[in-house]
Amino acid sequence: MSAWRGDLAAADEAWRIQPVDRSLEPALRARIDGKAKPPGSLGRIEDLAVRLGLIRNRLDPKVESAVLFVFAGDHGLTAEGVSRYPASVTAAMVETFLAGRASVNAFASAANVEVRVVDAGVAADLPLHPKLVSAKIRAGTRNCAREPAMTLTETQDALRRGRDLVAGAIRDGADVITIGEMGIGNTASAALIMHRLAPAPLDACIGSGAGQDEAGLRRKIDAIHRAAARTAATTPAEVLAEFGGCEIAMMAGAVLGAAEQRRPAVIDGFIAGAAALAAVRLAPAALDYCVFAHRSAERGHARLLQTLGAEPLLDLGLRLGEGTGAVLAVPLLRAAARLLTDVADLSDVLPRTP
Amino acid sequence: MSAWRGDLAAADEAWRIQPVDRSLEPALRARIDGKAKPPGSLGRIEDLAVRLGLIRNRLDPKVESAVLFVFAGDHGLTAEGVSRYPASVTAAMVETFLAGRASVNAFASAANVEVRVVDAGVAADLPLHPKLVSAKIRAGTRNCAREPAMTLTETQDALRRGRDLVAGAIRDGADVITIGEMGIGNTASAALIMHRLAPAPLDACIGSGAGQDEAGLRRKIDAIHRAAARTAATTPAEVLAEFGGCEIAMMAGAVLGAAEQRRPAVIDGFIAGAAALAAVRLAPAALDYCVFAHRSAERGHARLLQTLGAEPLLDLGLRLGEGTGAVLAVPLLRAAARLLTDVADLSDVLPRTP
Repeated sequence: MSAWRGDLAAADEAWRIQPVDRSLEPALRARIDGKAKPPGSLGRIEDLAVRLGLIRNRLDPKVESAVLFVFAGDHGLTAEGVSRYPASVTAAMVETFLAGRASVNAFASAANVEVRVVDAGVAADLPLHPKLVSAKIRAGTRNCAREPAMTLTETQDALRRGRDLVAGAIRDGADVITIGEMGIGNTASAALIMHRLAPAPLDACIGSGAGQDEAGLRRKIDAIHRAAARTAATTPAEVLAEFGGCEIAMMAGAVLGAAEQRRPAVIDGFIAGAAALAAVRLAPAALDYCVFAHRSAERGHARLLQTLGAEPLLDLGLRLGEGTGAVLAVPLLRAAARLLTDVADLSDVLPRTP
Repeated sequence: MSAWRGDLAAADEAWRIQPVDRSLEPALRARIDGKAKPPGSLGRIEDLAVRLGLIRNRLDPKVESAVLFVFAGDHGLTAEGVSRYPASVTAAMVETFLAGRASVNAFASAANVEVRVVDAGVAADLPLHPKLVSAKIRAGTRNCAREPAMTLTETQDALRRGRDLVAGAIRDGADVITIGEMGIGNTASAALIMHRLAPAPLDACIGSGAGQDEAGLRRKIDAIHRAAARTAATTPAEVLAEFGGCEIAMMAGAVLGAAEQRRPAVIDGFIAGAAALAAVRLAPAALDYCVFAHRSAERGHARLLQTLGAEPLLDLGLRLGEGTGAVLAVPLLRAAARLLTDVADLSDVLPRTP
């Protein structure tokens, strides 16, 4: 194991991420402008096509096969009553994903995306299942209102496992990696990560998550403030370790893994967005590979997107997570790539003038 | 042929369109709220699921098989220089659709939508092709700056053929009808239709279409104003006849046909939107069946959507037409329907409390 210290410089060195080569952009724009359509008439799909070309570093990027990783983990902070749901719902939802009966299964099926479920840190023994990837870092994080959620070693392991899972999917033929999560209590961790890494005032990062009554929201705000007061950590690996969770760190690793392999990483909502933020703070060039799928209704997400300079593709008031918004964006990526690869040039179509 | 006079009351009678039965909405909402997810957490997809349930009048609507009709027609008004492209581009693009090499083919393939191309009124003899539906009303409309674009009989034929094509697709198994178009010069007709039927000030309805320089835009505005000054028509059939085109009237018929058959009609951009407006003015209940796919960058479209009380699903700066925006919305419809049909109830998922 290499010396990995968790600080920005060392972690950045460990990730072999090249920024995209923007010198290809004029050729991509020219190719799109030469297509059989008025210049600019496909708006943001044209911009997306350019991004996909830059990510793949070619004029004919293939973006067909899409894999969604749903990273699941539990949070010790739920002991403070931060969620309306009991922590056991995380494991119950993992079983629902495996049974193909969750919202994200329905959406992924509608968008032709393969779902892989990852036990990043669920606080229960999950049954063996052919679709379940066991990558458990620990059985739920520690309560970050009282102590660090994870050790730095656990955090490092989570980052690496996220990277390795993505590398494996790409070896198997995935053109695009889609990233979602499940973890009761994880909007609290995401808020703390955003607070430290955006950075942004803590209260601007806290929302009602899966839905909270007034007393529940007060408990959540109080627990988050106690966690923030406990540590001054600001480097990305330390922030992930302090606040968790296993699934957020593993998502950050997945983003970095997609960037290493020059594949688009489609980021779901607020929690996946916080993971992408951590990835970008670990290796700034990773941002070039992130496609932000949608603007979540969760408070904090719009600001998080602004921090990253991201304009998401969809704005549908989603706030479920699981990857539901991310998979809905996949057909837009496919359409954008096909604009480059499948559409005739105007010169082939226009009636010739003698 | 029945006595069909082209006025609102008579035309409305001819269309057997029932408004949706809103008494089903509470049961649809309850079904969605009972799913294994926080209530309301799928935002506009939940609203879309309710609409699909109402359209199909059932709690388990099936929305899988989607057909896009691309209605093509030429416009006599192009003689006034309203477009940057020659009218012959309409026929050239029809051949590109048939070859599977236009933007909409690429997008439809990405969204798993079947494309059917309809010659509604192209000003050229098109080759026989298994994917080309010949429904030609006339070889291009007359120049509406000088005379009515179509007769009322031609308009009536176009409406009926649009309806019949949709009825046939639904008999063949289509769950959702997607509506797009191709016709050099047709943003001018759409502007005139919107002006009379919204109604809205003429200049608020005129945009640069496929892209125009300043002189071209002045010619377009002038020609549109002459067409508007020529006739005071305000009933929907007369407005369609006066301003054309064949493809817009046939799209209006397609919308009405989908509504008659209680299937969702997914409306593309500005021109398809003007056709939907005409359909809704012919039979107001048709609005219940329209799903507006996206907000086009064409000037006038945002106001047209407001007139119809529609909030589109996507906002991607598209202004191409062909159905490109409509097909991109189809996966959202599929996801919404599958939320109702495929997702487990929370009560099946939550750990039982004794």
